[in-house]
Amino acid sequence: MPKVSLKGQEMPESPIRKLVPFSEAAKEKGLKVYHLNIGQPDIKSPVAALDAVKNNIPEILEYSHSAGMESYRKKLAEYYQKNDIEVDMADIIITTGGSEALLFAMGSTMDNGDEIIIPEPFYANYNGFSVASGVKVVPVISKIEDDFALPPISEFEKLITPKTKAILICNPGNPTGYLYTEEEIHQLAELVKEHDLFLIADEVYREFTYDGGEHYSIMNVSGIEEHAIMIDSVSKRYSMCGARIGCVVSKNKAVMSAAMKFAQARLSPPTLAQIASEAALDTPQSYFDDVIKEYKDRRDTLINGLSQIEGVKIAVPKGAFYCIAKLPIDDADRFAQWLLENFELDGETIMVAPAAGFYSSPNVGITEIRIAYVLKKEDLIRSIEILKEAIKQYNNQ
Amino acid sequence: MPKVSLKGQEMPESPIRKLVPFSEAAKEKGLKVYHLNIGQPDIKSPVAALDAVKNNIPEILEYSHSAGMESYRKKLAEYYQKNDIEVDMADIIITTGGSEALLFAMGSTMDNGDEIIIPEPFYANYNGFSVASGVKVVPVISKIEDDFALPPISEFEKLITPKTKAILICNPGNPTGYLYTEEEIHQLAELVKEHDLFLIADEVYREFTYDGGEHYSIMNVSGIEEHAIMIDSVSKRYSMCGARIGCVVSKNKAVMSAAMKFAQARLSPPTLAQIASEAALDTPQSYFDDVIKEYKDRRDTLINGLSQIEGVKIAVPKGAFYCIAKLPIDDADRFAQWLLENFELDGETIMVAPAAGFYSSPNVGITEIRIAYVLKKEDLIRSIEILKEAIKQYNNQ
Repeated sequence: MPKVSLKGQEMPESPIRKLVPFSEAAKEKGLKVYHLNIGQPDIKSPVAALDAVKNNIPEILEYSHSAGMESYRKKLAEYYQKNDIEVDMADIIITTGGSEALLFAMGSTMDNGDEIIIPEPFYANYNGFSVASGVKVVPVISKIEDDFALPPISEFEKLITPKTKAILICNPGNPTGYLYTEEEIHQLAELVKEHDLFLIADEVYREFTYDGGEHYSIMNVSGIEEHAIMIDSVSKRYSMCGARIGCVVSKNKAVMSAAMKFAQARLSPPTLAQIASEAALDTPQSYFDDVIKEYKDRRDTLINGLSQIEGVKIAVPKGAFYCIAKLPIDDADRFAQWLLENFELDGETIMVAPAAGFYSSPNVGITEIRIAYVLKKEDLIRSIEILKEAIKQYNNQ
Repeated sequence: MPKVSLKGQEMPESPIRKLVPFSEAAKEKGLKVYHLNIGQPDIKSPVAALDAVKNNIPEILEYSHSAGMESYRKKLAEYYQKNDIEVDMADIIITTGGSEALLFAMGSTMDNGDEIIIPEPFYANYNGFSVASGVKVVPVISKIEDDFALPPISEFEKLITPKTKAILICNPGNPTGYLYTEEEIHQLAELVKEHDLFLIADEVYREFTYDGGEHYSIMNVSGIEEHAIMIDSVSKRYSMCGARIGCVVSKNKAVMSAAMKFAQARLSPPTLAQIASEAALDTPQSYFDDVIKEYKDRRDTLINGLSQIEGVKIAVPKGAFYCIAKLPIDDADRFAQWLLENFELDGETIMVAPAAGFYSSPNVGITEIRIAYVLKKEDLIRSIEILKEAIKQYNNQ
């Protein structure tokens, strides 16, 4: 029997995935499980985006241009310009989700064995894309005590080797909820200029900022046009995760030309979803106002609730819709499984994502969990009650 | 300015892509260009598939399961069973096109520097997926004189090294139109068993066979269950290229488990397109009967026409909708460009794909072109007239 690849075997298991059999078993036992573990919003997609598909289904579902439909790229460039990001359609390649945008960015900038520095905790699938691209992830720790702010630049510098090709950030952050300041982005810009690195920023949560915080894009920094690669997606912005439409954006022509080869090899991003995504660009500000108000309320509900559980530490999220909480327990992996296997409060329990899976360094974050506040308020309130009682019982075993 | 990756630079240009600027210039001059170069069928997608999307757009466009919607996988397994391919839903992962299925198959079976043997000429994007996966393509030549039949097994054996992990075939073949016989598939099966290799078969053109030829899948061969990986797609079958839905199918649990990690990292295939693809499975046989009759008529038109041009040699295609023709010219690359830049017949010209780009060996196939017979009959007839006159003028320069 032929052997599967080491690469395939080394693809890390998602920190959430390994709990799925336990949540399924819990549901089979008749338990209600509140899912605090996933970033699938319950917000409705913009009606106009879905109607556009309904009303514009072609007779032949053809390939689009490999870089995406021209009309979509044009309109998307206008959206960025409205958001003070000066790009035109030649700087954009439409991808199959932010996932493929990251694969293209890595494939176009890094060879086998090259290194990418990523502040941890980070979105766990960055590991997967790195393995798929033959790239080594070098983590730099950001701390819950600092709300997961950018680690000191000196910490990055310690990690730079001749193999280092890029720094990757997620802003606002999944799983941290941290929103980088303009000053931090400029620090990173100086760093990549000095060491001739790429700066890749996953900015898919751009719209979701709270408390008056404003998102500052790496594309806003002048002087790093050849270094900056932005990753974007419609998934969270319009609650259209299943569309699988994203894009890679850069002013660096050599990067875009390499990325275009990857794009051409896979022919085109999905056509129907591009129709939806183009129409979604007309979504009125009122939609975002409502959505952001809803997420802010949920965040406040979550933060208030968690801060009333003794021993729980949180980093208050300023953006996106995730929060890392440090719990007064021995091991979040064990706790998360126990919640599904051995606990219930009146027939209900919760599923959380152990945060260790979002760190690349071993033995870090082992008492932390990530909570996605994508559930409605009353469910969040109930989930916090369940968490509170669970911590007590878990520690009294 | 940071350097782009060698991998990105080495991604080969598509043999068609480099001609696009010339075809655009030709159109700007007011010329009508018949596209014999692309595999985008003009056949309508099944109405029921598109209606299913129209009538089932969800309020929230959510992620599906990473392996694809359960209902789709179930129904797809039944489709295979009806086609005498005994698989169940656990053996199937839905992918974003056949392209992603190939990436998953390579990623799950091969490490950086491993080798894959592919009979050439082959679908040019196999090069791209190989580069992206860090895999080295080792070509084995199949010949127009043999209608591109399977090269002798001894030719494969000469190329096997300790790095060889898989053999990849396309059946029926793009760009050759060759349909492997049951006997040839069994020869390959013996070979992969003996040398403990994977056998990856791209079977996306399964339905398109002519002259009573029947497609024989690698999944039909008993004894190679652990070796066989089938690649499939809805693109050509239902003329839904823009759906971007395919799948990877294997009985090898270790392969499927590795592939599942790649699938989880990119979250899910596109949701709307899965709805269309599931509904497409109900497409009545009459749709295929009509489509295959149409393609067969086109093929016959093309073959008859080409065989009346002096000095043109063809391999009669038994499946798919491509044909390789050897022309009485010095260089097909130059000829293809000349057709667009310097030739016209009453305001019209043709665009063809030089076949050298489908060979991995240098200086092979340089007088051959690939013709996709996806145009309606009268356009094919006119295209052949144009080709005939063009060859004459080109050689009289």
